[in-house]
Amino acid sequence: MGRLVNIHYDNKPLYNINIEQDFSGFPAVFESLCLENRKLCILTDSTVGSYYLDNVMDIAKEYTSKAVSYTFEAGEKSKNLDTIEDFYEKLIKEHFDRNDVIAALGGGVTGDMAGFAAATYLRGIRVIQIPSSLVAMVDSSIGGKTGVDFRGYKNMIGAFHQPSAVYINVSMLSTLTDQQYYSGFGEIVKHGLIRDIKYLDYIKDNYNGINLRDLSVLEEIVEGSCNIKRAVVENDPEEKGERAVLNFGHTLGHAIEKLKDFSMLHGECVSAGMAAASYISMKRGMLSQAEYNSICQVLKDLKLPVKTDGLKAEDIINISKSDKKMDAGKIKFILLNGMGNAVICNDVTDSEMCEALDTVLG
Amino acid sequence: MGRLVNIHYDNKPLYNINIEQDFSGFPAVFESLCLENRKLCILTDSTVGSYYLDNVMDIAKEYTSKAVSYTFEAGEKSKNLDTIEDFYEKLIKEHFDRNDVIAALGGGVTGDMAGFAAATYLRGIRVIQIPSSLVAMVDSSIGGKTGVDFRGYKNMIGAFHQPSAVYINVSMLSTLTDQQYYSGFGEIVKHGLIRDIKYLDYIKDNYNGINLRDLSVLEEIVEGSCNIKRAVVENDPEEKGERAVLNFGHTLGHAIEKLKDFSMLHGECVSAGMAAASYISMKRGMLSQAEYNSICQVLKDLKLPVKTDGLKAEDIINISKSDKKMDAGKIKFILLNGMGNAVICNDVTDSEMCEALDTVLG
Repeated sequence: MGRLVNIHYDNKPLYNINIEQDFSGFPAVFESLCLENRKLCILTDSTVGSYYLDNVMDIAKEYTSKAVSYTFEAGEKSKNLDTIEDFYEKLIKEHFDRNDVIAALGGGVTGDMAGFAAATYLRGIRVIQIPSSLVAMVDSSIGGKTGVDFRGYKNMIGAFHQPSAVYINVSMLSTLTDQQYYSGFGEIVKHGLIRDIKYLDYIKDNYNGINLRDLSVLEEIVEGSCNIKRAVVENDPEEKGERAVLNFGHTLGHAIEKLKDFSMLHGECVSAGMAAASYISMKRGMLSQAEYNSICQVLKDLKLPVKTDGLKAEDIINISKSDKKMDAGKIKFILLNGMGNAVICNDVTDSEMCEALDTVLG
Repeated sequence: MGRLVNIHYDNKPLYNINIEQDFSGFPAVFESLCLENRKLCILTDSTVGSYYLDNVMDIAKEYTSKAVSYTFEAGEKSKNLDTIEDFYEKLIKEHFDRNDVIAALGGGVTGDMAGFAAATYLRGIRVIQIPSSLVAMVDSSIGGKTGVDFRGYKNMIGAFHQPSAVYINVSMLSTLTDQQYYSGFGEIVKHGLIRDIKYLDYIKDNYNGINLRDLSVLEEIVEGSCNIKRAVVENDPEEKGERAVLNFGHTLGHAIEKLKDFSMLHGECVSAGMAAASYISMKRGMLSQAEYNSICQVLKDLKLPVKTDGLKAEDIINISKSDKKMDAGKIKFILLNGMGNAVICNDVTDSEMCEALDTVLG
């Protein structure tokens, strides 16, 4: 039972992503990491913790020398160095040494923070990712990006730190709200658009299973997305080049997310950002009108926004330019040169962005 | 002119340490790093900055697109996340992107903080180390250890982040106080004791040049220490094993440093720690009485303390046990099994430490 995605780094096996429908495979992960004499600290937020912490703690207590937990208030507002410092203090008070382990039980915020703490506590300790949201399952638990927001700048501070294991229990998706659940499809559609159009076809063919949160369909989707992201990240673990294609929809999406002060979810902002980037691609003749329309339709079918209101194009562009994905003052913009084929463009103009944003803000 | 030490990682060349008697070789370093279209931010402290910042800025301005600086108040007290956060803010305000570079102009505190900021700003940017103290030249600018103190715990938070270049100008040692200067010999003597007894003989044969701060002697000593540390670090870049021998004198030394609330310099505390660790080695029959005496004599000849007062052995041992160099509750203690041959011991008892500390505290 279950599926396994193996992540390699420098052609060496690095860690496994276990995709399961429950927690029954979890003890084997603890055993593979030799944790019987090690301590584990589970970082979780108040929402996810209320559903799953007891369950995970019961297993952790059985397979480690000591299991403790640290719960922070759910929400992007907690993703800052203050929370990290309080978490460091917890680790110090519990005498965590370099061989002890952190586990992230939660969505992207929890995974980013646990990963950053693991990257920087005692110059780096191990972290196990247990993603609870669809975004975290298909995106943020792979590739070792960690980070926290800093004085209003998203993910400005962070490090690359690979997890030692990822355990995905797709049944955890049952406790997400509709908005949280569908926002996860922002990254999923992105994976299809940038690299694998057959994967996107599978999504389109399984709207029913998706809407029912069918565990087998979800296993298939999560595995597919993990494999696409794996292939990109393995070729470029520290985002020197190709990995930037994973930022499709993110340049404008992050700016929208920031201007909306995180009242829109990440996947929703990426959806609007992808609609705009696809529009620029169409205007450059890299996508047909029909292809552009089909992209907007998939997003809408998955209850994702291709429009947003209350923002000015100028503000979005200005914020994009202070984003971290800059190279000597130029925005690294990701466009589609045909369906399933993302390319990096350094020459997207303000007026192209403006025109595209008009369709999104209109 | 000048000397070059090449640092490798995974058998690939990683960066160079340039050892010079002035700043004349500095422009070539900028050119080798292709900084003509990149920004540089120099982190320095109020003391070192007052001597050298203008000089370094003049060169930096000529060989980068923009050079700025950030000066913090000199002293270990500044080595915390608050200073790091203010430095992040400076980088953000100056629109530093992933290709821009930080330079550390100063001693160990500056190097540690610049390295940690470089490790975590935008998930990692390049850093050039320009060490100004003898300790920083022979120790902390090599190996990629970075860190800050956290709520009283030394170097608790940090990351491994290799510099892109190290530029050592030994004439900068002329502005150190005698106490700062001689404290650097703590790490230098350590290098000889753990790995290379001939290097220690060179030190003993050159007390006159050392006392005169002769630039040629200092070049030779710095190169020798860099090569010893290089050999250890290259074999074990992330301190999984052998690299721990560099902690000779540090287990008790760090505890003394902390209890003295940093009123004694790092090298002085390490000196006392080495005297204690050598005593334990002698008691175990791994060093002769004559060898133990000769170690204490070298330290004294270099104006380093082999005794300290006002502390209790019990407190030192307790603090040592909360140090980060623990493995499943055991202290990884470094002893000498003969001169020039350090070994890792996990079985040093409290009573051995107590007896050794009695000689240091007596």
